[in-house]
Amino acid sequence: MSAKVIDGVTIAATVRAEIEAEVRRLKAERGITPGLATVLVGDDPASATYVRNKRRACAEVGINSFGYELPVTATQDDLLCLLAELSARPDVHGILVQLPLPSHIDARRVLGAIPLHKDVDGFHPVNLGLLGVRGAQVPFAPCTPQACIELLERSGAQISGRRAVVLGRSTIVGLPVALMLLARDATVTICHSKTPNVAQVTRNADILIAAIGRPRFVTADMVKPDAVVIDVGINRVNDPGNPRGFRLVGDVDFDEVQEVAAAITPVPGGVGPMTIAMLLRNTLRAATNQHAGSA
Amino acid sequence: MSAKVIDGVTIAATVRAEIEAEVRRLKAERGITPGLATVLVGDDPASATYVRNKRRACAEVGINSFGYELPVTATQDDLLCLLAELSARPDVHGILVQLPLPSHIDARRVLGAIPLHKDVDGFHPVNLGLLGVRGAQVPFAPCTPQACIELLERSGAQISGRRAVVLGRSTIVGLPVALMLLARDATVTICHSKTPNVAQVTRNADILIAAIGRPRFVTADMVKPDAVVIDVGINRVNDPGNPRGFRLVGDVDFDEVQEVAAAITPVPGGVGPMTIAMLLRNTLRAATNQHAGSA
Repeated sequence: MSAKVIDGVTIAATVRAEIEAEVRRLKAERGITPGLATVLVGDDPASATYVRNKRRACAEVGINSFGYELPVTATQDDLLCLLAELSARPDVHGILVQLPLPSHIDARRVLGAIPLHKDVDGFHPVNLGLLGVRGAQVPFAPCTPQACIELLERSGAQISGRRAVVLGRSTIVGLPVALMLLARDATVTICHSKTPNVAQVTRNADILIAAIGRPRFVTADMVKPDAVVIDVGINRVNDPGNPRGFRLVGDVDFDEVQEVAAAITPVPGGVGPMTIAMLLRNTLRAATNQHAGSA
Repeated sequence: MSAKVIDGVTIAATVRAEIEAEVRRLKAERGITPGLATVLVGDDPASATYVRNKRRACAEVGINSFGYELPVTATQDDLLCLLAELSARPDVHGILVQLPLPSHIDARRVLGAIPLHKDVDGFHPVNLGLLGVRGAQVPFAPCTPQACIELLERSGAQISGRRAVVLGRSTIVGLPVALMLLARDATVTICHSKTPNVAQVTRNADILIAAIGRPRFVTADMVKPDAVVIDVGINRVNDPGNPRGFRLVGDVDFDEVQEVAAAITPVPGGVGPMTIAMLLRNTLRAATNQHAGSA
């Protein structure tokens, strides 16, 4: 039997429509337009595409976006200076620094310099620590992990009491999504590159989150029948038949795994569109919070 | 075959001797005496005992301790006020607020008010977030989780590549120790009260950490042969034969489990003494850091 495909495009469209309505109301009733500043350092084409897509998505729901581009030679101080300026601007409610940063820049230092109330990417270390705490008020959950959770919840998957296995322990995806699943009462296992015999672990997963950046790493034999599989990977593989010379595949072998799983997200069209929707929602919330009481 | 007993008293004595020598040198060479302020709110006898033991341990290695006791009626503002005073005092290098706090006080708010450089208990949310990040500089690792790691390392247990299962997800022990094991390349699973069929999970553990506060919860059938078992629990059980009317037992059924495990910590005499040694070490480090450059 073939798995239900969790359609990130359609679910994200629903979320974006909710956001658009809320942005319109915020403008009409209080004269506030949410604003997002995007900061891109260097000229990595994939990063440039991500930023462009995010800014386009802002425009579509009525959120202002302010694009900043620094050359790859920019120093850490240049970047911190820009962040200080953006932190002070009242029309910028959210600040997004596109990762990865060039290696001469300390990403943790930079992310820690974004004030918590404008950290719409949710990468501040304080956020990470609070994610695993039930009942804690996390200013902003990071977008990709939150996208995984929303896709699970909106597609009707139960989290509480289930066994979740997360492949990958990055602070961007693997670790925060593991903490968020834990806070929702899943029993969570985190696997990574040093995990021997990973298939033996993943075969116990009712919920499997793949976030390791290895194309089609998860094969059918690694998946428990009727598991729900969320594929965070976005990998380019050569494809001479494609005009661009490549195509995008996830960390999961979709064709194989959909024969085993109960539900699965495709790549593209799964976590990706939902991640952008979460960024929009965080930016909207940041604007609402920053103007609280000024109505 | 009976397990090796990991003797926390002896290992802690070694660590304390190291600390004592370092404190003596710090005094002789630079005239600095490390200082720890302990803050106890209310009159819970167990908490009072813990604080007394910590202060006695300070005295034994030459660390000054300053005891503060607030009545159970103290307000959160009273406590924040005291913390502000202690934060400013140059002779107080570390601040320890004994948990649990009375329910009318927001513990997270209070712990977040201890400046990071004096947070020798390592409970600040920033610390928690950084623990799972490989290579991150955590100002102070929380004492009990660090005690578990030190007992594993000093007793020769391998962590990297092994499967670790943590029972309990408190921000005081379970969650931070899980993150610390992850940062050391274990494959980590976190179980809790909502985990069904927990024995099935624990039987896969090469390293089993029990931190759930349920007397003798872990029985022999839950333990993989040759696992290393660290017992964080300290539970009072009635014991009419004991002059105090109770005795202390861990979360692990020691007698049963030692027949299965390769190594196991006893209660008392395992994690407890090591936890205090970690507090002393954090206080010494805090003093050294705060006087860096003033030599």
